Parts: sequence; structure tokens; C-alpha cells
Amino acid sequence: MPEICVGIDVGGTFTKVAAVAPSGRVLLEAQLPAEVAAGPASFVDRISALIGAWRSQRGLKISGVGLGLAGDVDSERGALRFAPNLRGWNGFEFKKAFEKRLKTRVAVDNDANVAVWGAFRTELKGRPRNVVGVTLGTGVGGGLIVERKLYRGSTGSAGEIGHTIVEPGGEKCHCGRRGCLEAYAGAYGILRSARKLLDESPGKGEVLRARVPDLARLTPAQLTEAADDGDEIARAVWARTARYLAVGMANLVLVMNPEVVLILGGVSRAGRWILDPIEEHFAAQPFKTAFGRARVKLADNQNAGRVGAALLALEDF
Amino acid sequence: MPEICVGIDVGGTFTKVAAVAPSGRVLLEAQLPAEVAAGPASFVDRISALIGAWRSQRGLKISGVGLGLAGDVDSERGALRFAPNLRGWNGFEFKKAFEKRLKTRVAVDNDANVAVWGAFRTELKGRPRNVVGVTLGTGVGGGLIVERKLYRGSTGSAGEIGHTIVEPGGEKCHCGRRGCLEAYAGAYGILRSARKLLDESPGKGEVLRARVPDLARLTPAQLTEAADDGDEIARAVWARTARYLAVGMANLVLVMNPEVVLILGGVSRAGRWILDPIEEHFAAQPFKTAFGRARVKLADNQNAGRVGAALLALEDF
Repeated sequence: MPEICVGIDVGGTFTKVAAVAPSGRVLLEAQLPAEVAAGPASFVDRISALIGAWRSQRGLKISGVGLGLAGDVDSERGALRFAPNLRGWNGFEFKKAFEKRLKTRVAVDNDANVAVWGAFRTELKGRPRNVVGVTLGTGVGGGLIVERKLYRGSTGSAGEIGHTIVEPGGEKCHCGRRGCLEAYAGAYGILRSARKLLDESPGKGEVLRARVPDLARLTPAQLTEAADDGDEIARAVWARTARYLAVGMANLVLVMNPEVVLILGGVSRAGRWILDPIEEHFAAQPFKTAFGRARVKLADNQNAGRVGAALLALEDF
Repeated sequence: MPEICVGIDVGGTFTKVAAVAPSGRVLLEAQLPAEVAAGPASFVDRISALIGAWRSQRGLKISGVGLGLAGDVDSERGALRFAPNLRGWNGFEFKKAFEKRLKTRVAVDNDANVAVWGAFRTELKGRPRNVVGVTLGTGVGGGLIVERKLYRGSTGSAGEIGHTIVEPGGEKCHCGRRGCLEAYAGAYGILRSARKLLDESPGKGEVLRARVPDLARLTPAQLTEAADDGDEIARAVWARTARYLAVGMANLVLVMNPEVVLILGGVSRAGRWILDPIEEHFAAQPFKTAFGRARVKLADNQNAGRVGAALLALEDF
């Protein structure tokens, strides 16, 4: 009987749950509304009921549970320190609450960490020694693999790549500072940049304007489609996004000297519009040894979070 | 009989050698001109003769030799890949050459790595789990301690902190790019900035002008003295240097989440002129957990390189 773990990926809108084999194969899965306003105890109740049903009705034997939370996580205590998108959940001890309900061991970590771990173990087969992972969603997160292990740093806060400064005094970031990578490469920064460019260039962006009459509803996916169809505004927005991503990623290559820079999350579906400029930027660097080794890989997998959470639970025990 | 190692720190001008006990205590030391132009084989001859004399005349029994080289080092092969300040030495296999001559094991690493390792083991007593070290000299280097070990990355090139970009399109760096931390916080960047500010502000900087009639000979030490004596240009230069150092160091804290940020090298003697602004910048960050943990420490010790090289040799065997 292989060890099965359950992984839980908690976002601001949905919670994704999966029972995962050590290979990374998903055996059972579910998606629930996050219902953040109902509070963390109610969340633990609902998830525990789901796992209870998997145990009783499907005969699932689980060796552990892994939980990924969008925020600053104390992975030793298994508690959420601070999360702007999970209001009222700050300070809650998830590890203790889940262990009491499920009578199994529980690992809790940051959502970007678990997603990077999932992609490392499945897409990269756990092979490279050192990996820098960046998650491009509404915000920009990150995770570091050092010597094939998740590197958490001294307080579990390592890998906050999205808030490294790539332009001092630059665009406003959701964290309150200016010039963070997230302010340029997070979905909100990308869309803000697109709307500004459209405002400033009345005669341009025909494809984008025709396709998205209400620009308040613009999405990164639409920007990618418009860029594919030759829209110059859309292409300029991706070029700008990629330029800042390239600066941020190059800084990480200089510091971490990884084999792989892994780009995850919805925004990575922009594909070559971000990948090509990053690769060109890397190829032009004078530090040939580090940049010659670092391969950039887009690896969007919507299951990476829950699979990573489950595999991390397996790892930690 | 404790294990004694010899550490060798090779700079562009001098080579510093020391026989070091496992505690970090220096038992014997010497300083030789680097004589780079004579080539690496001649360098190996001279150092081997010195160590031979220490063995025969002083009865020194050595367990290993550690070598720190200012450049891109392949620490596995023990060879220098590339070093702009050690012309003609590129590609030389130091490990092989020294092992053949000295009949002992040899470790070779980057000079910033060995200096950070030396300061970690002696000044920090090897206690913190994760440390980011920055060496401020003519250039800016760095080294990372991860889980109390030196982190070398995938090609031995990790920790190139000086070439992370802190101002895209900014000042010219010796590496050929613009906006690297080194272009602001390396001695040449600091002095360039001082001369520019003096040029632009004819009525200011009286202390500095009186003390250094020939500004071509200005040194960081003179800038510190002038700042201590109230010179506004000197203070503005240190404020600017510290601002960029703070951006670069904050980026590293966000990524690495260390307990200590260690600042080494001659420029660190600017003391509070750089330390205070960095600490203020850290205190103002919204990421309280990581910045609350990270302590900034100035630790200039001119022996850190040779002591670190010796201790690293001890570590590697």
C-alpha cells in the first residue's frame, strides 16, 4: 500500500484538494469555494468532512495532509502569520486544528512554496539540485529549491521574489512600496500597464479594443491572444512585463546560480511573449557560467499547488 | 595534535597566507606580492616554498590547504574559470598543481565565498543557520551560508550579489552592464559618485576639498573621515551608497530570509554612514517577519579571507 497524502491549496476564491500518490499522480480531487468570511475553523470543518468522506466512502488511507496558504506561514508551528487575502484567518493554527480532526500528521506552508515543490517533483522529476521558482498570478510569489529540498529560510519567509525591487521608485505595488517585481509582472500590474498604454495611444491597439470593449474586464489571457494576433499594444505590454521579469530573474540567477528557473501560474500562459525576452536577456549577460547553466522553463500546471502540498507532507515525515 | 590548515587569499595586489587552527586562530602568517604577471605556475612555486619552509623550519603539520581566488571558480575541479584581475591565470588548475607540490588536499573557492565563510565561522561563531554576506571592496562580492554550509550553487557561481541590478539603466559597472549594485557600492562607484557631486556643487564639500587636494587620489576612508567631520558632500555620497546597498540587501532578505546580513571589506569601515540607513530601510519594510529577523552586521576583518580559506579546507575534507 503506497503512502497517500492529501494536498490542499487555499486561494482567495477556491480551495483545491487532491489525494496524491508519491509519484505525484492525483487519485481523487475536489474544488470548494474558499468561503474566507466563514472563518478558518469552518474551513477546517468542511475540508475535514471531505477527507472523512474520502476515507469512509472511498476507503482512502492517508499518511498525511499538506496545506498551502497564500500568506506568511510559520511552517514550524503550522500557523498563518499574515495573509492580506484571507481576512480573519491571521494567527490561526492550522496544523493543530487539522491534526486534532484528522488524526494524521499535517504540514503547512506558503502557497508558492508548495506550488514550486509540486512542479519540481512532477515537471522536473526532482532532478535539478537548485531551482528558482516564480509564480505569476494576481501577485508574484516564489519558492527556492536548494540541494533538492525546499528552502524556507530562517522564519519560513524565503522566496518572496515578487517583492524584490526591480525599479526603485517605480510603479505602486499592493504591498505599499514602489517598484516591486509584482507591480510589473503580477496580473494587476500587467493590466494596469495595458490600460495606461491604451489611454496614452488612442490610435493603437485595435485588436485589443475590438476584442475587449470593456477594458475594466481585460484579462492576461486576452492580452496574450491579442499579442498573437499582432496587436502592438499587447505586444508592448508583454515586452515591458518580460523586461522586468528578466531583471528580477537575472538577479536570482546571480544569487542562487540555479539549473532551472521555473515560471508557474496563469500569467505564464503568455508563453513566448515572456519566455523569448527573458532568454535573450540571459544570453546577453557577461556572467557566462551562471547564465549558461540556467534554463528557463514555463510550467503552468493548475494542480501544482495541491500536488505539491501533498508531496511536501510526504517529504516532511 | 589539532588539524592545521593553510589558507591563501589571492587579491590583485597581495597574497595573504596563514596557518590556521580549527578555532580560527592564526598560528603563522605572511603577505606576498601577488606578481600576477609572472603567471600561476610561478605563484604556486612561491606559495609552496613558503609552506615548505613553515613545515621544515617551524615543524608545521598541515591537513589541507584552502585557496580563495578573485574570480569565477570551478570549486569541484579546483580551477579558475575567469578572473578579470588575474590576467593570464584563467583556466589554471590550482587544486591539481598545489596537490602535486604539497602532497596534501586542496580546496579552491571564490575569494568572497572564503571571506564570508571566515567571518561566519569566527565573528558569528558559526551559529546562525542562514547568512547573506556582502564584501565591499573595489568590487562588490558575496557569499551565502545556507543551513550553516557555504552555498555554491550549480556551477560554484552563487552569491554574485554585486551584479544584481538595483537601478535598471543606471550607472556603468565594470562588468559592462548598467545599474549593478557594484556600480554604486563598489569603491570605484562610490568615488565616481563623489567626484561627480563635487564637480556639480562648486560651493560645497569644503572639508573634503581641503583634505584631499588631488581628488584623483580620493579614498573611501577619506570620505568617511570627511563625513565624520560634517562634510555634506561626503555625507550625501554615503547616503546614496547606503540607499542602493539597502535596496540590494533588502532584495536578498526577501529571497534568502537570513538571520544575519554580514557586510565585510574595507568600504564597511564607513560604519554608521552605511549601517544606519540600511537599518532604517529594513525597519520600514512591510514584510515584518523576514526583516524583523534579519540583523545587519558590519564585520571588517582583514584576515577573513585567509582564515576562511583555511577553515573551508578543513570543512571540505
